[in-house]
Amino acid sequence: MTTTQTMAVYGLGAMGYGMAQSLLRADHRVWGVDLSDERRDRFIAEGGAAGPVDAAILDAAVIVVLNADQTRAILTGADGLIGRMPAGGAIVSCATVPPRFAREMAALAADAGLHYLDAPISGGAAKAASGQLSIMASGTKAAFKAAQPALNAMAETVFELGDEAGPGSAMKAINQLLAGVHIAAMAEAVIFGMTQGVDPQTTVDVISKCAGSSWMFENRGPRLAAGDYEPRSSVNIWPKDLGIVQDIAREAKFSAPLAAAALQQFLAAAGSGLGDEDDCAVAKIYARNAGLTAPGG
Amino acid sequence: MTTTQTMAVYGLGAMGYGMAQSLLRADHRVWGVDLSDERRDRFIAEGGAAGPVDAAILDAAVIVVLNADQTRAILTGADGLIGRMPAGGAIVSCATVPPRFAREMAALAADAGLHYLDAPISGGAAKAASGQLSIMASGTKAAFKAAQPALNAMAETVFELGDEAGPGSAMKAINQLLAGVHIAAMAEAVIFGMTQGVDPQTTVDVISKCAGSSWMFENRGPRLAAGDYEPRSSVNIWPKDLGIVQDIAREAKFSAPLAAAALQQFLAAAGSGLGDEDDCAVAKIYARNAGLTAPGG
Repeated sequence: MTTTQTMAVYGLGAMGYGMAQSLLRADHRVWGVDLSDERRDRFIAEGGAAGPVDAAILDAAVIVVLNADQTRAILTGADGLIGRMPAGGAIVSCATVPPRFAREMAALAADAGLHYLDAPISGGAAKAASGQLSIMASGTKAAFKAAQPALNAMAETVFELGDEAGPGSAMKAINQLLAGVHIAAMAEAVIFGMTQGVDPQTTVDVISKCAGSSWMFENRGPRLAAGDYEPRSSVNIWPKDLGIVQDIAREAKFSAPLAAAALQQFLAAAGSGLGDEDDCAVAKIYARNAGLTAPGG
Repeated sequence: MTTTQTMAVYGLGAMGYGMAQSLLRADHRVWGVDLSDERRDRFIAEGGAAGPVDAAILDAAVIVVLNADQTRAILTGADGLIGRMPAGGAIVSCATVPPRFAREMAALAADAGLHYLDAPISGGAAKAASGQLSIMASGTKAAFKAAQPALNAMAETVFELGDEAGPGSAMKAINQLLAGVHIAAMAEAVIFGMTQGVDPQTTVDVISKCAGSSWMFENRGPRLAAGDYEPRSSVNIWPKDLGIVQDIAREAKFSAPLAAAALQQFLAAAGSGLGDEDDCAVAKIYARNAGLTAPGG
């Protein structure tokens, strides 16, 4: 049985656009909301609902913006969803945010009779477009139930991490800590190899089959070895996400030296004008500091 | 066709013992050499050659000791193999050493008519015992040929990384940089999760299926979550191996901040009396610094 719902996706970026497409494919009525008219019009041309969002008839809102501030604006701003969406509606909050922020938003939503699912995403743009994301979700049973039609359309795997907001965002932070460290470590290792006369492609080929490998090594290593810096996931993601990790860690008085070191490398990359390149371009900082040139210049 | 050779394995530790067993299984005559009489006698009981090594009749010597100093002593010390092994013999050098040291030993060996294979190993004790190691090897064509019977018995995969000593050791250093960083990152992430109320086993279960995973995360994470610190690979490996990485990096004026941060965590673990525990015990440093207790106490 298919339940057709009325939904809105806030943020039509690399992830949000594909998620909105996945919702359309599942026969939901979907508004796409973005600061870019071009993206919004493109989504309407693909079957998205035209005109301004009518929050009063939304069954679900999927929020895929950059950070906590943007999420807060959508939920509690002048035209905020909290207070305008009808009771029983589902807010599916996908941005990487601190667990404390997720708990705060969930409480505000509950006061307005809304269900809030703390639901950060993982998997990249291709899986977003094919409805095969992993979602690290936590919230009340009622929130999972209210969000079910949207989750079914967007996700291959939904990790159910607890019955309140917070653990979903915590797990996303754990994942981003590791992912960011592993990308920087990949770059550190490949350029370290260059200092010893080892060709980047050889490092990628050999290490991929050894105990030093990681998901990120196998995903980003070949891009770096090919000198391909077209952004699938940009350098700019990491000052943001590792910054959130450090914010959470500092509040918990948790010393996270590897995450801190990786953050510095991504900050140096962003500060050097590489922010919009693929995140494997952090290797250019390592190379420059060694008097070398990363693959592809 | 099986060519039975006369060999000696220097160092019957977790890796060397299994490698010596693999050589025995391939019907070679094998001396096992170790400072521990108990290990040597156990190997003789399993079929190893009795009595002192007769270097003058060795076809191959496999050196699986702790570091460059021990390797040098075996090759060039008072009873060193260089000068005593017959011309044409193969030295298979498996310790993690700086590439420059490998080149130096290869030159000394060549002067004595010996073939030196720069052949660091990867794969752990179980694969050593089953003859399924990965070997990161470089050396002359003649060195590969002379070492072939030993390699056939010990390795599932032999990466041929160049026609001179050096690249093998460089690739091992690259692998150890990543492996050490990934173990420390695993510990950092799991204990970070604990500060946010996320159970270690949940972190291991979820992250293993996400982009934050690594070979080491999947291997060491379950041990940590189970509080199992029985050493398969001990904390003490990492001050040594990441120390070699840092030595090589410093000589090349290469800034390796993640490897440096990981090294500090392993040094703190070793300095806290955890050196002989499994390397996942580096998590105890993270936990202690956060006022928490790692799984299993």
